[in-house]
Amino acid sequence: MNKGFFITFEGADGCGKTTQIELLNKYLQENGKETLLTREPGAKGLGVKLREILLNYDGEVSPNCESFLFLADRAQHVDCIIKPALDSGKIILCDRHTDSTVAYQGYGRGLDIDRITSLNIIATSGLKPDLTIVFDIDVETSMERVGKTKDRMESAGMEFFNKVRQGYLEIAKKEPNRVKVINSSDTIENIHKQVLELVNKLWQV
Amino acid sequence: MNKGFFITFEGADGCGKTTQIELLNKYLQENGKETLLTREPGAKGLGVKLREILLNYDGEVSPNCESFLFLADRAQHVDCIIKPALDSGKIILCDRHTDSTVAYQGYGRGLDIDRITSLNIIATSGLKPDLTIVFDIDVETSMERVGKTKDRMESAGMEFFNKVRQGYLEIAKKEPNRVKVINSSDTIENIHKQVLELVNKLWQV
Repeated sequence: MNKGFFITFEGADGCGKTTQIELLNKYLQENGKETLLTREPGAKGLGVKLREILLNYDGEVSPNCESFLFLADRAQHVDCIIKPALDSGKIILCDRHTDSTVAYQGYGRGLDIDRITSLNIIATSGLKPDLTIVFDIDVETSMERVGKTKDRMESAGMEFFNKVRQGYLEIAKKEPNRVKVINSSDTIENIHKQVLELVNKLWQV
Repeated sequence: MNKGFFITFEGADGCGKTTQIELLNKYLQENGKETLLTREPGAKGLGVKLREILLNYDGEVSPNCESFLFLADRAQHVDCIIKPALDSGKIILCDRHTDSTVAYQGYGRGLDIDRITSLNIIATSGLKPDLTIVFDIDVETSMERVGKTKDRMESAGMEFFNKVRQGYLEIAKKEPNRVKVINSSDTIENIHKQVLELVNKLWQV
């Protein structure tokens, strides 16, 4: 049995990830590929329970505890969902994964990037995506798309999301073979074409 | 306000920890000290919820996920219970803490001890106990005390608990100032005296 492929999709909320993942999934299935659509955090099973705790727990949750809960969710996701699907030859389309933590917690919040990277390696047991697509978009456009107007955003908020965006671009610079950036201000159709180009290269390797 | 003291109690199940913690607590309270009795994992609040998940979740939980859940529990315990109590000048008596993970997962299960130590440092934000008391007892005696007979234990089980015991002794060798070993085959009263001796030294520093 062929080993599958692990593809992750990254970018700010409102960057068009979900639309593009659905279009790609449709294309792959029409071309006879077996796919698995999944996401982080809280894909299913235990992950959903952890997500519930993170969202609904009414007491204080320390930031350090929260980080470990996300890592627990990631470890469970990799061990019990992603790896078995990969082993059965599926193409995994995953909405957010390790690079989200690096971009948001590391570049955005200023937490130690080397530490985040080490913890990610432990949580994934070293598994890396075969391909990561970053949908790059300027902060104001992504804000508009998720229904937030600029004046509702504090300037600190804008600064945070700009840092996250720069973080994604830095990640792509550091790992150019794995991480590809698509300009997400183009039309849905044109972006889809670029996604297909990147994904179709995977089969040719 | 004086800073409090953080004392942890370690050793195999059946080593007499709980009895000694209760005796010490009674002594300290009778001597006008404010104490906090706590434990890991699952002290209270979010910890209890995590413990519930760990014990009652009916699906598969990956070992890697489980480790991160324990670390999440520890981070929450340190940030939201231990540190505030320390800051208010209390004496914290904690049943199991970081050394349990090193002894059981590291020495017992053979996981990488340096990695466990690094993760413990992150989870505790570097907080170390002022004093750790290890109640040392041979494996057969501890088994008898928790109601298990030797023939019910597989030989691998005996080997595991022997490794855990040796692990605790190694930890004490590496950090002789913090970690003190008491021979737990002595009488309850004699052990209590030794505990008091160690604890009373803390005030004299």
